[in-house]
This record gives sequence, C-alpha cells and structure tokens, in this order.
Amino acid sequence: MGSENAQYELIYPPYAPGRAEHIRLILEEIGNPYSDTTVLGWDPAFAQIRELLKGVQGNPPYFAPPLLRHGDLILNQTSNILMYIGGRHNLAGNTPADAFRVNALACTALDLLSDEVHATHHPINGQLYYEEQKKESVWASKAFIKIRMPKFFDYWQRTLEAKGGLWLMGETFTYADIVLCQCIDGTKFAFPRAMDYFEKTGKYDLIYEHWAKVRARPNIAKYLASDKRQEYDNGIYRYYPENDVTPEEAECEKPADGN
Amino acid sequence: MGSENAQYELIYPPYAPGRAEHIRLILEEIGNPYSDTTVLGWDPAFAQIRELLKGVQGNPPYFAPPLLRHGDLILNQTSNILMYIGGRHNLAGNTPADAFRVNALACTALDLLSDEVHATHHPINGQLYYEEQKKESVWASKAFIKIRMPKFFDYWQRTLEAKGGLWLMGETFTYADIVLCQCIDGTKFAFPRAMDYFEKTGKYDLIYEHWAKVRARPNIAKYLASDKRQEYDNGIYRYYPENDVTPEEAECEKPADGN
Repeated sequence: MGSENAQYELIYPPYAPGRAEHIRLILEEIGNPYSDTTVLGWDPAFAQIRELLKGVQGNPPYFAPPLLRHGDLILNQTSNILMYIGGRHNLAGNTPADAFRVNALACTALDLLSDEVHATHHPINGQLYYEEQKKESVWASKAFIKIRMPKFFDYWQRTLEAKGGLWLMGETFTYADIVLCQCIDGTKFAFPRAMDYFEKTGKYDLIYEHWAKVRARPNIAKYLASDKRQEYDNGIYRYYPENDVTPEEAECEKPADGN
Repeated sequence: MGSENAQYELIYPPYAPGRAEHIRLILEEIGNPYSDTTVLGWDPAFAQIRELLKGVQGNPPYFAPPLLRHGDLILNQTSNILMYIGGRHNLAGNTPADAFRVNALACTALDLLSDEVHATHHPINGQLYYEEQKKESVWASKAFIKIRMPKFFDYWQRTLEAKGGLWLMGETFTYADIVLCQCIDGTKFAFPRAMDYFEKTGKYDLIYEHWAKVRARPNIAKYLASDKRQEYDNGIYRYYPENDVTPEEAECEKPADGN
C-alpha cells in the first residue's frame, strides 16, 4: 500500500493545530520523519492543498484537508488517515478485528469532543462568522457543558475502567489513546472552567490521568515541548470567555428573547 | 475476523431508517441474510442496545448505535461498520489502498449530507427538542441550502466526472456509492424544493443519475420496494415545511430579532 519507503506528507493549512494535530501526534509517537505544509505558510500550503484535492495520481478528488500523501496514495478524513498510519505501525491493536474496534473508539472521540466542540462556536453554520452567531454559540456552549459533557465523561471513564484503566484497549497502547488525549487537551483550552469542574468532582479521574499519561510518552512529550507544537487559537478549539462556564452556571433553556 | 460463518446482526432503534440504513443497504446489496432489531419493536431493541453498548465479549464499551455484531466482534460507528462489511464482500475497491480511498469518500458523504443535514434541525443541541430551537433551525436550514449545498454538489459532480461518471471509484462499484445514494435520498426527503431546484439547474446531472443507478441495482431495488424499507420520519432526515426553501428564497443573514 502507498509506497512502502515514501515519507509521510501531511497537508493542512497553517496557523492552527486543527484536525491535523491527531495525525502529527501519531507521526511523532512512531518517530518517523514527515513533512508538514504548516511550516510553509499560507500561500504555499494552500497551493498544495488545492492541487491534491483535485484527485491526482489516480486518487479521487477530496473535499477538504487534512490530507496525507504517502507515495502515490492520497487520503483525507482524519480518522481514515489515522487508521492507515496506525495499521502500518502497530498502533491499531493486536488483531485485524482490533483495528476496527480502535477505529470505532477514535471516530467516537472525534465526534464527541472535536466535532461537537467545534459546533458550539458555529452552531448555525461553519461558514458564517462567529460574531453573527454569538448569541446562539453561548446557548450551544451551555447546553454542551450541561447536557453533553457529563454523558461523554461517563462514557470515557467507563470505557477506561472496563479495560483496567491503562489504555482504551487495555494493555495495548493504540492511536485511539492519542485521539482521546488530544480531544481532552483541546476541550481544556476551549472550556477551562468546565474542565476544572469535572476534574474536581473526582468522578473522571481515569480520563484526566489518561490525558497526562499520553502526554508523558517520550516522543509525544518531546514534541509538545518543541516549537513544532502550535498554539490553539482560531481552529476547532477556541476560547471565548462568554462560553466558559461550569455546568452549575449553565442554563440550557432557550434565551429569553428567543421565540 | 469476527466469526467467519456468523450471521450479521444489526442493532439499532426501530421506527426510523437513520444511520443504520447505510448498513441495511450494503447488507441487501451483498444478499446476505442478517438480523435487524428494528423488527423487534422498542423495548426488546433497546434491551439489546443497552447490553451490547456495555462492551461484552472483549469488545470496548461503545457510545451509541448503530452496532454490528458478527460472532464475537461488536462494532459501532457507521463508516467503520461499512468498511468492515465492505472489505469482506468485495465492495471496498480493488486494492488494500483503495479501501482507505473508499472510506474517505464514505466518511465525507456522511459528514456533508447526513451529519450536516441532521444539524439543520438541531443546530443548538441534539438533545433539546426541535421546537425549542425552531427559529435557529430555520436559519440553519437556509444557510445550509444557500451556502453548503452548492459546494457539496459541486464536489460530488466533480468527483463522479473525474472517474468517468459511472461510480465514485470509476468502473468499480463500492459501498461509498451506496452511502452517497442514501444521503441524497434522505436529503431529497428533508429538502424537496431545494433538491428539485438543484436538479433543474442541470449542473449536477451525474449526482442525480448516480442516485437512480444505485437504487436500480437489483437487490437494492427489491429491498426499496419491500416492507423492510422504513419511511423517513423523525430521524436524521426530517421534513419541516418552514425549512423547505430553494437557494433563491434562502436568506442566510441573521434573523432581524437576533442580536
């Protein structure tokens, strides 16, 4: 598959870690050299994105980055790229069936703690400005914190517990652990007060410990401390003070001036 | 993987085709017998869902259905289940690398024309009632129809064109074709006036032809004409007259009474 000896090339717009950060983290974990368009700056990165989205070298056109190029193979969709790399580097469990269990866990983490967090700051439409949908964003953030986060945290705590509390698949570290860690990391940036609140309940200790353990893996720790790790700013995970509430403060009823 | 001779068991709540419909369609296409909790009614279906979500038989706990049970293997996440079945029945392209290209296409169809359509009727939060977020839903629907649909249609038309206009991967029919067809089908139910409008522009003929061609495949046509095909109602794809506008009628500016 791909070209066995080719270098991995990550193609993504610069200036925010975004969905590509999951892919960077798995590439750092395996310790393979890779190229990353983020270092090129805006125009050269977009020139590559535009070209590769067309469907070159027998690949279908794709809708959006992140893209991974590996020899002649070009892929999009974060979970798909992770599954491809994870399978090649022993990070997708111990059996062929495990690869699908790990993909299920990774897709779920991305749904709950990446897509749903993104939707809190763009509830009406991802292509309209935040300022246009600010009132709705406050409402969506409060509903997310009050209704969704406890449900998600119950699920991940229970999942870690079921497998003995070490990794999501038990004894075997997989890329799903990286995805959950990065999702928790970004959510801590977006909703620090809610994330502090949930940590202090003591009910979700395995999730917070898991986050710290993944971040402490030698290659990942080195990457996180380096200049290569970009700051959160204007991507999936954004900090807006008006959205930064605890579940106790969050009212998810419709705002009074709604209909 | 799984248990080679086990029957596929689809586990999903009854009374709406939902995300499970993609899985039913691939199972019908391959002509394998399968069981489906939808025929059991509400309580027995939920009893199975609750049990299997716990993570039995060495599988991790999962967050939500659809679930597929195949022998000892239990999976969730629609795209993941499709990739598993597709790979076992020659519906994932011609090479191991193609399986990832096909997964990329399927994930993209589900993102754009299943998740984003669902978000139009629950823009603030999926767990709040539609009626609570009705005004926001009208706004989100108009923005979706005006901004997003043309972009999505340009993409799928271009993708079919790039491969010669037959299937998404060219000569080879894959489960990504089933996913795109079912997404178009549901979107026609949710937004009939917009979907008519786009068809009449003539710019997207390959998408509408593709939808009809997938529906005409013998096993799929037989299923669609049978009692087993459930009606759209209260699931991913919902019809609300107030959201059923053409792109020309859709204003995606903030409603006047917003802030």
